[in-house]
Amino acid sequence: MKEQINVGIIGLGTVGTGALKVLVDNKDEISRKVGCPVEVIKVADLDIVTERPVVFDKSILTTDVSRVLDNPDVDIVIETIGGVKPAKDFILRAMRNGKHVVCANKELIAKEGSDLLGTACENGVDFFFEGAVGGGIPVIRPLKVCLAANKIQEVMGIVNGTTNYILTKMSTEGRDFADVLKEAQAAGYAEADPTADVEGYDAKYKLAILASIAFTSRVNVNEIYSEGITKIAAQDICYARELGYVIKLLAIAKRNGDQIEARVHPTLIPTTHPLASVNDVYNAIYVRGDFVQDVMFYGRGAGSHPTGSAVAGDVVDIARNINHGCNGRIPCTCFDRREIRSMDLVGTRYYMRLLVADQPGVLASIAQAFGDNSVSIASMVQKDMYGDKAEIVMVTHRVVEKNFRKAIETIGHLSTVAKVSNWLRVEE
Amino acid sequence: MKEQINVGIIGLGTVGTGALKVLVDNKDEISRKVGCPVEVIKVADLDIVTERPVVFDKSILTTDVSRVLDNPDVDIVIETIGGVKPAKDFILRAMRNGKHVVCANKELIAKEGSDLLGTACENGVDFFFEGAVGGGIPVIRPLKVCLAANKIQEVMGIVNGTTNYILTKMSTEGRDFADVLKEAQAAGYAEADPTADVEGYDAKYKLAILASIAFTSRVNVNEIYSEGITKIAAQDICYARELGYVIKLLAIAKRNGDQIEARVHPTLIPTTHPLASVNDVYNAIYVRGDFVQDVMFYGRGAGSHPTGSAVAGDVVDIARNINHGCNGRIPCTCFDRREIRSMDLVGTRYYMRLLVADQPGVLASIAQAFGDNSVSIASMVQKDMYGDKAEIVMVTHRVVEKNFRKAIETIGHLSTVAKVSNWLRVEE
Repeated sequence: MKEQINVGIIGLGTVGTGALKVLVDNKDEISRKVGCPVEVIKVADLDIVTERPVVFDKSILTTDVSRVLDNPDVDIVIETIGGVKPAKDFILRAMRNGKHVVCANKELIAKEGSDLLGTACENGVDFFFEGAVGGGIPVIRPLKVCLAANKIQEVMGIVNGTTNYILTKMSTEGRDFADVLKEAQAAGYAEADPTADVEGYDAKYKLAILASIAFTSRVNVNEIYSEGITKIAAQDICYARELGYVIKLLAIAKRNGDQIEARVHPTLIPTTHPLASVNDVYNAIYVRGDFVQDVMFYGRGAGSHPTGSAVAGDVVDIARNINHGCNGRIPCTCFDRREIRSMDLVGTRYYMRLLVADQPGVLASIAQAFGDNSVSIASMVQKDMYGDKAEIVMVTHRVVEKNFRKAIETIGHLSTVAKVSNWLRVEE
Repeated sequence: MKEQINVGIIGLGTVGTGALKVLVDNKDEISRKVGCPVEVIKVADLDIVTERPVVFDKSILTTDVSRVLDNPDVDIVIETIGGVKPAKDFILRAMRNGKHVVCANKELIAKEGSDLLGTACENGVDFFFEGAVGGGIPVIRPLKVCLAANKIQEVMGIVNGTTNYILTKMSTEGRDFADVLKEAQAAGYAEADPTADVEGYDAKYKLAILASIAFTSRVNVNEIYSEGITKIAAQDICYARELGYVIKLLAIAKRNGDQIEARVHPTLIPTTHPLASVNDVYNAIYVRGDFVQDVMFYGRGAGSHPTGSAVAGDVVDIARNINHGCNGRIPCTCFDRREIRSMDLVGTRYYMRLLVADQPGVLASIAQAFGDNSVSIASMVQKDMYGDKAEIVMVTHRVVEKNFRKAIETIGHLSTVAKVSNWLRVEE
């Protein structure tokens, strides 16, 4: 048992400040669970002037990152500067100095996880990142331990709070994307440049991490298909509801034979699905395993305090390992080399909204195009009229994407079809 | 690293069979995560004749429990015989023989957890019980590790699948308790003697375990207030819905100053609460911590395979500890001695349904009784007429239970009140 375990933090932004605050405010709670005091002894940030909402001894602040990374007294380094550079180099340096590392940097882990876990292993140190997915929600460790005996078959998550907030608002208030986005930006729920969120890039990083753990095979972020929510219209949400669905931006990974499906896109899910009632900025990760069947983890997927909670939980776990001399007890579990299934071959159901001429034979020609591509229609509803055009909404049975795309392209070129207004994937 | 880690099982009932099946069917998955083979080498049960739905080498079956408990080759014992006696003695014997123990026996842990954890500690062995609460749902380990840095403020759970199934059916089909219970019994969702489930005893065991971990203080199962669901009528569910609530059997524990509230009772919760959409036999545990804010764990709260998944997850964790020489790294965390708050002093809101004379002055006398006891009414609805009687439904503002009980007793004796048909607690 050590006399004291010392923590250094690099990066005092939103998450770093949250982590510092938990470690300071709940020091007693943490220390007795670990068995010895756990103390933040050094915090590095370029800005050591701005006041942060945490009461702590300012003398531990430094602008010099080496006073954390190369400090012989520091046992655990918390990396909360974000981005890939220079975060990766800092982490590698800390590990080579024998320090354990906690990180909530999804982009870095998604892109460089292999290197980082490898270096951790070589140096016999822990590298934990519970906060990288789902903010405060416990999901990485439950997957790695509690569900370890399962063959995971599917992970589906609402892992981006900004887009979930926007879709919830669109859904409850019947408003359009652009309109709600503006409001979300004003309220601080969306960034001035919202691209990473609304185009699904943020969700892609998180899915790469979840899928790599779930399927014991590294999932490269570049291989994940992604589509954002910018093309969702208020009508789609409204029609989906009539059909018994809600629209969510889902990060989906499935075991499919020896391959893995990995994709991020807006998705219709039945209103009875546990993910359907996850609203506002909340996140949830739904997991299906061969024995556990279905479980879901729900909570606040971002924010200073929730993510700080996850980071501090990792610190507790590492500190217990230090006191029992067993760091590195859960190494990287990417044992396999599974291929990512081409999106062309992914099978799902599809929703589509078409604007067509209101005349005989239109449906026959659409049905022909579907039939030619082995797409079969599960349900169809004729909706509103727009002048002499009718809006129709259809949902297909399960079919591979390649076939659906061929069919919908053909349909888009039919003289009787004015417009393929939108099409979206459907999961059950 | 050991050459092989050996597991023995005592009790081949529903959970034991599930655990055996995971360990056999997913042996490869488990072994590579642990770093060496994990093998079930002995299974004891009084009945070694009945076929179980798992393919395994029958020569490992024995009717002699000592061939597990005293077997020098067994590293980990899984106790799945249930009940307190002789399970407790068997576990203590295994621990004293240096064996780690996994157990999903909620009654035993709730009643004898202190002894068992103490003996585990003395003998330097692990004692894990993830499957004791919420079946396959990861919740014990997430509380003990991922959320360890939080001061937990509240745990609210739907932890009994039978009663949740019954309430869901009553709610969706407008049927009465007795009627749905019969159907649940026929479908195998309720026992022939349903007392433990419908009276909330099962939920009490689980709450004792959850609250002891959440508040780092042993919560004695006898100190938990409990009330079952037998008095819920179809009307209550219907009126609750009109008021924006659903009725669930909740296991509730809250930090209240230095004390702990711990109670199991049917509860009205807003339809927007994450627990409100947990239906059928599903379980969910909602946790609020000072930093993580709110998280929820959802899944199948019982059954052979889900609970087997939890048990096998514990085996993986212990096996990793064995290979890293760090068993006992997470000891009992009941550091404190917090009192359980008397139910009289617990504050909540109340729903009530009264049958009253349809005449002037009735409401005034009811209001008087409430006023005299500092109970204030948040909302009131006059519902159907029954002959010359009117049914009224009221919801109070927050008030301590003692005051509400005094008021409702007085009201029950008013000459203008024919009947206090029901009253229930409301949580927000």
